[in-house]
Amino acid sequence: MKVGILMGSDSDLAVVEKGLSVFKKFGVEYEVRVMSAHRTPDLAVAFAESAEERGIEVLIGAAGKAAHLPGVIAALTTLPVIGLPIKSSTMDGLDSLLSIVQMPSGIPVASVAINGAENAALLAVQILSVKYPELREKMKAYRVEMRQAVIEKDKNIQSKNLVESVHK
Amino acid sequence: MKVGILMGSDSDLAVVEKGLSVFKKFGVEYEVRVMSAHRTPDLAVAFAESAEERGIEVLIGAAGKAAHLPGVIAALTTLPVIGLPIKSSTMDGLDSLLSIVQMPSGIPVASVAINGAENAALLAVQILSVKYPELREKMKAYRVEMRQAVIEKDKNIQSKNLVESVHK
Amino acid sequence: MKVGILMGSDSDLAVVEKGLSVFKKFGVEYEVRVMSAHRTPDLAVAFAESAEERGIEVLIGAAGKAAHLPGVIAALTTLPVIGLPIKSSTMDGLDSLLSIVQMPSGIPVASVAINGAENAALLAVQILSVKYPELREKMKAYRVEMRQAVIEKDKNIQSKNLVESVHK
Amino acid sequence: MKVGILMGSDSDLAVVEKGLSVFKKFGVEYEVRVMSAHRTPDLAVAFAESAEERGIEVLIGAAGKAAHLPGVIAALTTLPVIGLPIKSSTMDGLDSLLSIVQMPSGIPVASVAINGAENAALLAVQILSVKYPELREKMKAYRVEMRQAVIEKDKNIQSKNLVESVHK
Amino acid sequence: MKVGILMGSDSDLAVVEKGLSVFKKFGVEYEVRVMSAHRTPDLAVAFAESAEERGIEVLIGAAGKAAHLPGVIAALTTLPVIGLPIKSSTMDGLDSLLSIVQMPSGIPVASVAINGAENAALLAVQILSVKYPELREKMKAYRVEMRQAVIEKDKNIQSKNLVESVHK
Amino acid sequence: MKVGILMGSDSDLAVVEKGLSVFKKFGVEYEVRVMSAHRTPDLAVAFAESAEERGIEVLIGAAGKAAHLPGVIAALTTLPVIGLPIKSSTMDGLDSLLSIVQMPSGIPVASVAINGAENAALLAVQILSVKYPELREKMKAYRVEMRQAVIEKDKNIQSKNLVESVHK
Amino acid sequence: MKVGILMGSDSDLAVVEKGLSVFKKFGVEYEVRVMSAHRTPDLAVAFAESAEERGIEVLIGAAGKAAHLPGVIAALTTLPVIGLPIKSSTMDGLDSLLSIVQMPSGIPVASVAINGAENAALLAVQILSVKYPELREKMKAYRVEMRQAVIEKDKNIQSKNLVESVHK
Amino acid sequence: MKVGILMGSDSDLAVVEKGLSVFKKFGVEYEVRVMSAHRTPDLAVAFAESAEERGIEVLIGAAGKAAHLPGVIAALTTLPVIGLPIKSSTMDGLDSLLSIVQMPSGIPVASVAINGAENAALLAVQILSVKYPELREKMKAYRVEMRQAVIEKDKNIQSKNLVESVHK
Repeated sequence: MKVGILMGSDSDLAVVEKGLSVFKKFGVEYEVRVMSAHRTPDLAVAFAESAEERGIEVLIGAAGKAAHLPGVIAALTTLPVIGLPIKSSTMDGLDSLLSIVQMPSGIPVASVAINGAENAALLAVQILSVKYPELREKMKAYRVEMRQAVIEKDKNIQSKNLVESVHK
Repeated sequence: MKVGILMGSDSDLAVVEKGLSVFKKFGVEYEVRVMSAHRTPDLAVAFAESAEERGIEVLIGAAGKAAHLPGVIAALTTLPVIGLPIKSSTMDGLDSLLSIVQMPSGIPVASVAINGAENAALLAVQILSVKYPELREKMKAYRVEMRQAVIEKDKNIQSKNLVESVHK
Repeated sequence: MKVGILMGSDSDLAVVEKGLSVFKKFGVEYEVRVMSAHRTPDLAVAFAESAEERGIEVLIGAAGKAAHLPGVIAALTTLPVIGLPIKSSTMDGLDSLLSIVQMPSGIPVASVAINGAENAALLAVQILSVKYPELREKMKAYRVEMRQAVIEKDKNIQSKNLVESVHK
Repeated sequence: MKVGILMGSDSDLAVVEKGLSVFKKFGVEYEVRVMSAHRTPDLAVAFAESAEERGIEVLIGAAGKAAHLPGVIAALTTLPVIGLPIKSSTMDGLDSLLSIVQMPSGIPVASVAINGAENAALLAVQILSVKYPELREKMKAYRVEMRQAVIEKDKNIQSKNLVESVHK
Repeated sequence: MKVGILMGSDSDLAVVEKGLSVFKKFGVEYEVRVMSAHRTPDLAVAFAESAEERGIEVLIGAAGKAAHLPGVIAALTTLPVIGLPIKSSTMDGLDSLLSIVQMPSGIPVASVAINGAENAALLAVQILSVKYPELREKMKAYRVEMRQAVIEKDKNIQSKNLVESVHK
Repeated sequence: MKVGILMGSDSDLAVVEKGLSVFKKFGVEYEVRVMSAHRTPDLAVAFAESAEERGIEVLIGAAGKAAHLPGVIAALTTLPVIGLPIKSSTMDGLDSLLSIVQMPSGIPVASVAINGAENAALLAVQILSVKYPELREKMKAYRVEMRQAVIEKDKNIQSKNLVESVHK
Repeated sequence: MKVGILMGSDSDLAVVEKGLSVFKKFGVEYEVRVMSAHRTPDLAVAFAESAEERGIEVLIGAAGKAAHLPGVIAALTTLPVIGLPIKSSTMDGLDSLLSIVQMPSGIPVASVAINGAENAALLAVQILSVKYPELREKMKAYRVEMRQAVIEKDKNIQSKNLVESVHK
Repeated sequence: MKVGILMGSDSDLAVVEKGLSVFKKFGVEYEVRVMSAHRTPDLAVAFAESAEERGIEVLIGAAGKAAHLPGVIAALTTLPVIGLPIKSSTMDGLDSLLSIVQMPSGIPVASVAINGAENAALLAVQILSVKYPELREKMKAYRVEMRQAVIEKDKNIQSKNLVESVHK
């Protein structure tokens, strides 16, 4: 099981890295590439068209501003494509989000939140889980961990506020 | 292979129907239910929690306004959940979109375009294709068909404008 | 009289604290908990469902991004629920606000301003005042104080600008 | 138990009426008035200032565009004030919403969704329920009804789609 | 000739000061006050109602978030009221702008740009110029100065780029 | 006393007419012209530059989309210029509003609400009132009328709802 | 001199036609094609890559929603590419506009207004005029015509309002 | 071949400079001027009207907020005009963008991205290339360089991540 991740710019790595940690945690192989829908269109095309035969099962496209990359690669493969909108220096990510999520009928892109690299990776894992039951089990464990982490934080908060709420 | 579709309101069916046609075309079994994250939270919880064991492999949540349904069911299952933002009478669908796509880290929802029911269904098919190769083949055929339809439209346009462009 | 405050993340405490000061000032008992609509849905459900019998009379849900927490708990209790939209790193709080305020018919959430923790708490006090006349008296005193503070600021400004306005 | 409802314009009644039906259903007395924060400021002031002594326990202010009415009356009473943003012919209700919900610290307004008259009334009932247990019981019954209505709609949808989902 | 300036908060002074410099330059008397439409409504009312008889000929209301101050005072006087939207920590000033500019029919507010204190003051001067020809003369001189300042900047830019544009 | 009204397009007249009625009511002479900042820039320039000497004391510029007209004429005269943003077929008037209200420092435009022709005219009258006391008297009478109209509407609403509120 | 026009969908023709009239008027040869960046990516690529050698000198890409077409073809040719954002059923054209105009550095697209087909064509003519002086002459004549049309409209308006403005 | 660049303010130079580097690289002569549509309207008019006869073939107008400069000069010349929206301290550049791109029919402005100075210059070069084939050749070389730069970045990323993706 392997995920292909395309970034429109190497500066996107700062955001994308949180997603790579997820793949490491779940033992999902990944390939991170910098390819631009606009500056290296032929390479993006070649990557997307060959992705399936190279064993990639899910693709993630991360891009900012007029973020065409996820849509462009989605047009060239039938693998599921996840779009990760990157916030740039203007428009607070709204341009990236709309450029990715508002795909016209026929070619879907699965958009996650602006800068939501962790969720892009988790979504990829959940998609792979349809085929690989062991990933689903890991995901269930991950959820338990996550739940436990929230409970810990809740305990910390409660201990801090204990005095206030008791003495009132 | 089966997809579970939850709508927050039965009025969403007018939009969702375009997605059902996709499932019929691809021969994907589906189950459409009306359940509200707010008005029948227990049913939505029960549906989401039992989805996996009832053979559902992908979920679609369609909802408008403060559209919590996709996120709420995503929290209760590790199946991939697709969010379909429904445009309501105010805010042009922006509220639905942001309520669905801006999920916090940990629980992803795969958002498609506002009222993009066809794409929600196609995305579900592409996700199922990771496991079911026959669906991928059908999807490739679908893409060829879609391509052909655009070519036909292009021919129509060209024939209409032929005189203009030749005589100039 | 007791208010239950749920935060979707412990990082929301920085904002929520201003509201806690209000409760301390008014002598309203409160319980602050970290529970996520997505990461610990069962705990949030349990908290909301048991709130009334545990003596809580008003609930506040603070959350950011696709902020489902206030709506989710509002669906599970008939206590009044106040939604406090938290500004996150993208979209300037608009996503949180719309996710909280645009609730569909049937289950209301009382939204206050983005990061408006102080007002969330004051609103809770005003709601409790419907039942507890002593809180209303305190609120009236608080208004007088607040008014006095503005008058002080006005005096400072006037003294600074006195020369300009007299000598013209 | 009595609710005071102020509308900035009599044209708002078309929206507000849905809330009046809620009050009739719950047996909550109400008083609907047309008063403008801008065109009859003195009357709005007088209404707000005398509301408490006239037995009103919750106020609702409905207004569109630069919707100051809820905030203006909130400044003049310590009763809880619910703001109902009315969508006008431009800006899709965003102006009304922001003018109501973004209240500065000190004077809260409880905003509901744009044109959300039903929820404004239900919120008023839930606030009154803090004091009047019989309203809470009615609200619980209302929730059951609402839940049942969704279940009916769900059954209708299921019966329609039964053939499709079984035969696939 | 005298201008009355109301600020919703003393923190607005940092923005408003640029406008005060304009008044000093033009020799227009002004009175700056901190009064809140919400926290000191009676004082704002009294100020607005007495403004005309106290010799004020134009009013400026500066406020942020749900910025009701300019509209509220405009309702209580027939003097021209200029609204100055102040940018706060969320929503980038859009909330302030819409709360000020989208006034319903009957009571106009003359809105300037977000944080546009200088223009609020210049507008006040231009309004006063309708009556006081000497101000118009000063304004014409100010325009000439402003024009000259731009020409200076243009010269600086040109000298810097001279080499580039000549040698090409 | 005379007001000059420039419209960027004759289609704006449908909106602007409501303002003309105001001028008729107040006995203010006006001159309505169609001149485009883009299609007849020289005429707009000539009109703006000669306005003062032709006896015009206030200007109104009405325009849609990238609405430059008010700003362009404001740059060429020191008369007060009111900007009236016209809603066009896209962007719900937001483009017109921002193009008018966000004027850079130095050249103010007094913006009113999107399609707010009545308020543009009332503002013009209030500005003229600084010089012409008889207009202020008329404006005070107009306010009384307006107030009375709201009171009438309030009475109508109350009579309709009387039964409901009494019998509860 | 020839312009190539790509539309993402044949439904865009209703908007694009206004631009074709411009080309007919100016005697500029054009070629209108329906090609989708997503549904027929190979055809769009082939069209863009061969445009220059087929004698096309300027390209126009018209598309709605996540409008990638102009950017995609701009990446494959060094001809100037004009982007024409088409308003679709949601988001009022903002998605199309941002997807077209916010191109990342390196590959520019020249965006015109939402649904601004006439301006897209006029811009193409102005670009061609850099090379073909006869087009510039025609454009100057066109401007004169346009100016004359505005003057006619102005006359109509003035004749209508003559009585009002004289008799006051 | 010469490009004229107008900036509304000399503070825009920080953004515009990236475009100047492009012109230097391509050997395109340019003239940078500071002229304001509002503060020096006559100079902007004179510059635009004389641009063609002074040998300028393409114009760039850079401006922020209510950015009228590009539209104003576009109205006074038939040269192609590129609009460069500058982000100011409020509204994240949306005001500048809409003020530039939403030009009414008849006078087009070719808008690029907010702060997209590099693309404004590249677009100017592509427009000039219609006439000057040597610029097209340089542009093709530039594209190859840009492509190579992305490939380099891709290699860096791949080398970093090699271990992860091989060992999985």
